[in-house]
Amino acid sequence: MVIIKVIIKSKVKPTEDKYKVKKAILNIFPKANLRYSEKDFYGKWEGETKDVERFKELIRSQAILDTARMILEEKMDENSTRFYLNKQAAFVKAVNFDIDVHGGIYVKIIAEKGEDILKIIKDIAPRTKGGVIIEEEEEEIIEEKG
Amino acid sequence: MVIIKVIIKSKVKPTEDKYKVKKAILNIFPKANLRYSEKDFYGKWEGETKDVERFKELIRSQAILDTARMILEEKMDENSTRFYLNKQAAFVKAVNFDIDVHGGIYVKIIAEKGEDILKIIKDIAPRTKGGVIIEEEEEEIIEEKG
Repeated sequence: MVIIKVIIKSKVKPTEDKYKVKKAILNIFPKANLRYSEKDFYGKWEGETKDVERFKELIRSQAILDTARMILEEKMDENSTRFYLNKQAAFVKAVNFDIDVHGGIYVKIIAEKGEDILKIIKDIAPRTKGGVIIEEEEEEIIEEKG
Repeated sequence: MVIIKVIIKSKVKPTEDKYKVKKAILNIFPKANLRYSEKDFYGKWEGETKDVERFKELIRSQAILDTARMILEEKMDENSTRFYLNKQAAFVKAVNFDIDVHGGIYVKIIAEKGEDILKIIKDIAPRTKGGVIIEEEEEEIIEEKG
C-alpha cells in the first residue's frame, strides 16, 4: 500500500449549489474531508484524503487508464502530480479530465516521504496493451525485443 | 417606445442551482417569462420579455454603453441581434459580456415588424463621447467637420 496525500480544491461559482459541488467531489473521493469557505459570492471546497480507491475504480471501469496515465505524468514533479477533474462529469460519477475554464476539481497527489511518485502513478494508472493492464517491466522487455 | 421581443435562454449545469440561474436572468430581465426543462442532469431556462429597461439602466450605471453598442452591433442582422451575458456577473446584478464557454445567458433581441433593429440598438446603447450620451446625428456632423 503506497502512502499518499491527496489535496482537493474546487470553486463554487455564484450560480452553483455548494452541496452539488460537494457531491461531485465525493463521487470521486468519497472519504475526502472537506471544508467550505465563501467570499464575495464565490465559494470554495478544500480538503484532503488518502484514499484514491474510487478514482482507481472509475478510471478502470471507464477504460481510460492510458489517458489517466498521460495526465498524471504530465504535471509530475519530484514528489507530486496534479490535475483537474471536470466538475459536471464528477457530479454524474464519471472521471473526465477535460479542463473546465471556470475551475474544475483541482487534485494534487503528494507522495509521502520515502514514496516514489512515479510508483504511485503506476499503481493508480498502470499501462495497458489492447485494453489489458500490463506489468511495466514486461513492457520494457517487449520493447527491447522490438 | 420601440417594439421588440427578447428571447432568453440559459443552460443549467448539473452542479448549478436552477433557482440561482433563474435569479441571474431576472436580475437583468425582471419581467422575463421563464420556463424550465431538464434532460440528463442538464437543465435549461427559456423565455421571453419585451422589457429591456433594467438592462438599459445597468449598462448606463456601469458606464459600459460603448462596449454594449459594439456587442449589440456585432451579431446584428436584418431584424435582430444576439449576445451572451455572463451568468455569474448577472447573479450579482451586473452586466458582463465576457463569453462563458459553459453557456452564459443567451439573449436575442428581435425587432417587431415595422421596427428598425439599428434604431433599437441606438435606443438601448447610444454612443457616448467623454462618457456622455450623444445624439448620433450630432456625431455625424462632428465627423464631417473633422
